[in-house]
Amino acid sequence: MAGNTFGTLFKVMTFGESHGVAIGGVLDGCPAGINLDLEAIQSDLDRRKPGQSAIVTQRKEPDSVEFYSGIFEGKTTGTPIGFAIHNTNQKSHDYSHIKDSYRPSHADYVYDQKYGFRDYRGGGRSSARETASRVVAGAIAKQFLKDIKINAYVSQVGNLSLTTSYKDLDFSLIESNAVRCPDPEMALKMENYIKEIRKEGDTIGGIITCVVQNVPIGLGEPAFDKLHAELGKAMLSINAVKGFEYGSGFEGVKMKGSAHNDQFNPDGTTKTNHSGGVQGGISNGMDIYFNIAFKPVATVIQGYETIDKEGNMVATQGKGRHDPCVVPRAVPIVEAMTALVLADYTLLNRTIKL
Amino acid sequence: MAGNTFGTLFKVMTFGESHGVAIGGVLDGCPAGINLDLEAIQSDLDRRKPGQSAIVTQRKEPDSVEFYSGIFEGKTTGTPIGFAIHNTNQKSHDYSHIKDSYRPSHADYVYDQKYGFRDYRGGGRSSARETASRVVAGAIAKQFLKDIKINAYVSQVGNLSLTTSYKDLDFSLIESNAVRCPDPEMALKMENYIKEIRKEGDTIGGIITCVVQNVPIGLGEPAFDKLHAELGKAMLSINAVKGFEYGSGFEGVKMKGSAHNDQFNPDGTTKTNHSGGVQGGISNGMDIYFNIAFKPVATVIQGYETIDKEGNMVATQGKGRHDPCVVPRAVPIVEAMTALVLADYTLLNRTIKL
Amino acid sequence: MAGNTFGTLFKVMTFGESHGVAIGGVLDGCPAGINLDLEAIQSDLDRRKPGQSAIVTQRKEPDSVEFYSGIFEGKTTGTPIGFAIHNTNQKSHDYSHIKDSYRPSHADYVYDQKYGFRDYRGGGRSSARETASRVVAGAIAKQFLKDIKINAYVSQVGNLSLTTSYKDLDFSLIESNAVRCPDPEMALKMENYIKEIRKEGDTIGGIITCVVQNVPIGLGEPAFDKLHAELGKAMLSINAVKGFEYGSGFEGVKMKGSAHNDQFNPDGTTKTNHSGGVQGGISNGMDIYFNIAFKPVATVIQGYETIDKEGNMVATQGKGRHDPCVVPRAVPIVEAMTALVLADYTLLNRTIKL
Amino acid sequence: MAGNTFGTLFKVMTFGESHGVAIGGVLDGCPAGINLDLEAIQSDLDRRKPGQSAIVTQRKEPDSVEFYSGIFEGKTTGTPIGFAIHNTNQKSHDYSHIKDSYRPSHADYVYDQKYGFRDYRGGGRSSARETASRVVAGAIAKQFLKDIKINAYVSQVGNLSLTTSYKDLDFSLIESNAVRCPDPEMALKMENYIKEIRKEGDTIGGIITCVVQNVPIGLGEPAFDKLHAELGKAMLSINAVKGFEYGSGFEGVKMKGSAHNDQFNPDGTTKTNHSGGVQGGISNGMDIYFNIAFKPVATVIQGYETIDKEGNMVATQGKGRHDPCVVPRAVPIVEAMTALVLADYTLLNRTIKL
Repeated sequence: MAGNTFGTLFKVMTFGESHGVAIGGVLDGCPAGINLDLEAIQSDLDRRKPGQSAIVTQRKEPDSVEFYSGIFEGKTTGTPIGFAIHNTNQKSHDYSHIKDSYRPSHADYVYDQKYGFRDYRGGGRSSARETASRVVAGAIAKQFLKDIKINAYVSQVGNLSLTTSYKDLDFSLIESNAVRCPDPEMALKMENYIKEIRKEGDTIGGIITCVVQNVPIGLGEPAFDKLHAELGKAMLSINAVKGFEYGSGFEGVKMKGSAHNDQFNPDGTTKTNHSGGVQGGISNGMDIYFNIAFKPVATVIQGYETIDKEGNMVATQGKGRHDPCVVPRAVPIVEAMTALVLADYTLLNRTIKL
Repeated sequence: MAGNTFGTLFKVMTFGESHGVAIGGVLDGCPAGINLDLEAIQSDLDRRKPGQSAIVTQRKEPDSVEFYSGIFEGKTTGTPIGFAIHNTNQKSHDYSHIKDSYRPSHADYVYDQKYGFRDYRGGGRSSARETASRVVAGAIAKQFLKDIKINAYVSQVGNLSLTTSYKDLDFSLIESNAVRCPDPEMALKMENYIKEIRKEGDTIGGIITCVVQNVPIGLGEPAFDKLHAELGKAMLSINAVKGFEYGSGFEGVKMKGSAHNDQFNPDGTTKTNHSGGVQGGISNGMDIYFNIAFKPVATVIQGYETIDKEGNMVATQGKGRHDPCVVPRAVPIVEAMTALVLADYTLLNRTIKL
Repeated sequence: MAGNTFGTLFKVMTFGESHGVAIGGVLDGCPAGINLDLEAIQSDLDRRKPGQSAIVTQRKEPDSVEFYSGIFEGKTTGTPIGFAIHNTNQKSHDYSHIKDSYRPSHADYVYDQKYGFRDYRGGGRSSARETASRVVAGAIAKQFLKDIKINAYVSQVGNLSLTTSYKDLDFSLIESNAVRCPDPEMALKMENYIKEIRKEGDTIGGIITCVVQNVPIGLGEPAFDKLHAELGKAMLSINAVKGFEYGSGFEGVKMKGSAHNDQFNPDGTTKTNHSGGVQGGISNGMDIYFNIAFKPVATVIQGYETIDKEGNMVATQGKGRHDPCVVPRAVPIVEAMTALVLADYTLLNRTIKL
Repeated sequence: MAGNTFGTLFKVMTFGESHGVAIGGVLDGCPAGINLDLEAIQSDLDRRKPGQSAIVTQRKEPDSVEFYSGIFEGKTTGTPIGFAIHNTNQKSHDYSHIKDSYRPSHADYVYDQKYGFRDYRGGGRSSARETASRVVAGAIAKQFLKDIKINAYVSQVGNLSLTTSYKDLDFSLIESNAVRCPDPEMALKMENYIKEIRKEGDTIGGIITCVVQNVPIGLGEPAFDKLHAELGKAMLSINAVKGFEYGSGFEGVKMKGSAHNDQFNPDGTTKTNHSGGVQGGISNGMDIYFNIAFKPVATVIQGYETIDKEGNMVATQGKGRHDPCVVPRAVPIVEAMTALVLADYTLLNRTIKL
């Protein structure tokens, strides 16, 4: 329970630091007999990888995944799937600016306090590089889920907010631009804004919206393990996330019950969907949708003062090639975590009734 | 893993339906040797119980807890603490209006779909009554945590929002009014507004803010089990919750990294606290604060149309004594879940270093 | 993980000390829709209870179970089943002989060392009284398993060993005598021997054999959670158990592979069953059978010397009404734990294939 | 919970089939700050590897482990330790004799039934090759445990039984012979017997005894997770194990309580140790000792009849290079699993008292 496992039945354990030999994981509990499309897995990794466009970090890493077990003649065997992504971009950097001092709003300080020391080459285990392993596991979960459709997209960058309802968007446009916003006009504005921010040597936050469609009724548990609670945890476990809301979310607190209640149609669907597809912690068959808030990346290419291990103030400066805005690359991570949660509950739901 | 267990080391399993014989739970993993103040536990239950003021449901239930084990000569023994709260208010109601039809935005429909049938007397397992068991376990967790101070309060009801920073509030005023808002002027406005809403036979949502002080550095885990992710799950598992944000939250997405970063003081504290006391998933010793959004209660005392089991539209009406606004009674629940999360990580943290 | 939970999907958490208010538990994950026969549950409790015959402890306790939740209109609802058995036989005994001294081969000493103090009235949490809660949960598991037949019986007391293969025994005779040995002649010998032992103020060990029939193929997991490994743990978790063997067991080590291998019949059954119904950790459809060794009860009604808390030697003597031999009352406990293991794997097995 | 994870706090998840790309695992929860001796880890792997002597399989595999993460500047960092052992001996064998037919007392048949198909090249996931990953994790656990000494040795092969008490043995002689029996005379007899068995194309079973010394008082849990129950499960999860007994074991059932009870010395140690170092599921500071029964290896190099997938009887023959007796190579596996159990409880024990 040192926190590197996710899921109960469809369960992944990940390992790896940003500057170690490799990152990877083991996916246990994936049912036998799934025809795995390995290219689809690599494709999701490519959507996450650095260097893919002008608005993300220009670090080059192929992030190609090797599978070690659990797949035979193209199919999952029901046994654990071991995989690794070797780190290829770990040249002997100069780490002196971070080895003995603590970058603000990074985990450097708490790691030293918690563990007694840390792997100071980059973010170590707290690097977002860890999420590549999640993307691999999530891409397998997507293939298991099959008919359930998961689409995430960028809906806000700084103050630029896409207010169109997801129902009026064409999800096929998400991958048509570097920002991963399905509204091409807004996407262009966001892209230009991010470029501007980068020129300033600064960073900016954003929001990702995720929509899940064709969800069967009955996924989720009544008390602690409500479907949206597990989705919330999954999203909040992604680096830089500061908030999660589903359905009517924070705006819903201003509504009266008479307006908020989702009235039924005769077939059990509802006329509105303020509930966001989850009722009492259990999916009701309507679309599940939620928003995830990402803070601005902590590494800014500007000079600043910070403290060293002895508590002395030292002047330093961000270095290296960093993302000016994290949300474009985080879209496949959000999808992956969503898929992992739904895969777990899909298996669990098989055990509920006599 | 049918979702009725919370925590890994400091772990509670709850049971009970709103109209069964009793609700209760087992708390396992509570360390030996804690001098338990049983009155403090009952006092937290009283803060949650129905009928406590004019703005909550007028149902009368004493909610008195009996302990069955795990306590000897006033101290915890390190063995599981079994407890129960007998349901005393389960008269033979007329359930005909809900037995065969589904209340909108309640879990009736999904329960029937998931389990094949349900305990139709009230909300069954999805009733907020289940949270009384959490309050018992959480009140014990508070006593274990000792120096860590947890204060939750109502910061918004409908559009009435308390914008004062928590640092400028006097937490000793929280219990001075029925709303549990530490600003007496705003509390009065909220109280009047809730009374108005009740007269309309309607309900309204709200926000609870929770502040945790004197947190040691090092609670939390780097990857999936980040401290704020577990807090988020804990909050989202409370009935009617639609969103969670901590630190800068959803507003933080509009900030630039240079402004959002929390610069260090020489002693390792930070000048600002946009991070909300958690860095890379691990507590950094600064105050932890977060907001939780509650939707309006689904039961409205107004006529409406809904469907029966056969999918026919039927006219019906909310009955009984319900809360016009859930947040005043949810304050101790938020505190309890916060305490449970922190107790679990406190134990876990003992296992980290050689 | 303080060790009071058993099972992953079909999961029970128990609580209670021998001299507290009540013992009990919560059973979570039991599927919805099972018509519960409550009398069958009480009947298994009666098979375990003290005072049932002349060869067990003469303590009188009705051990009647109350159910608090999870059952509605006679059926399981899929929500947690809370239950308790109130302790009725906890008069204000004189505990001075055990309060400050440690009984040999009891857990008194390790409890004080581990927890700092203990509930010294009887065995506290280490009392076999805790197993009554297991019998309740196991009796529900039996009803869930339905077609799988579990029969346990006493096959050895001291040197008196029943060497007949289980296939040549009539299980309907198990309950025909106080020892629970299906061979009436041997049962009588055992009964007389136990009476003799009791007269000496001494105790004696024994072996229980358990046979599981009509097991579907496929229960169990390949690596750590092999079916027989979980059965072994379940049995070894019962008080006084010192050993577990299944199939050919300890005798099998003397066999050659050519003789030990179970040759197939055309229908997939095997001609012999040295494997004991489990192959590679997974049930193969043949009968599962295993032996469990129980040590002699530690409480002997004879004078002895032991140490007090300060390490002084003190003369003392066993008091109270104790079992001269634990196996007759342990038969339903063995069955209960077997049922819990099989119920868990039955649920788990539903999640294995696409 | 597909059974590939062991441990709660000190937790390993393994992956890999005998004929896949690699086997390996992730060890999570290992505390930070341990100076790892990598050679000691490889050395334990070498004690398990094929081809090490004349009485084990002559297959050649270097079994060299690569570490991917969790170690920095020679120390554990507290983050997960990912590792892999690449399979080097997977030439394109002829599998026709096992692809479509089922070897007796192997897992072939149950795998096909459970998963719908299987990796038919060798034993797949049920191959004992999986235990190499356990040896890696266990070797790290040993280094964490430091002062606790674990010594396993072969005490029986077929009918050749070493009856000397472990106290009269010199553990430094265990590695002095190929059998790993600390009595050189008996070792020679066993070695010759195994050679004879191999000449016959047959196999033979055996017993391993394991002794744990310098155990602190207090490891273990009272109810389900008794220390010896978890040790039993750990041992029974090793391939070919049929039985487990600790302390007085199966022989203890014949003893009377007055003789079996371990009387105290003034310092809390006991005069005898029939309890085997565990009282009420908790270590009492005395030596822990237990026996593990291994069946004869199922692969015999003799002709036999078996069934194919259609249930036809087919004549076939064991091929390849197999172990005539599994116990010499299983010694480090027993030690590894013992170390994993003790490491887990050592961490857990830190959370017990205030």
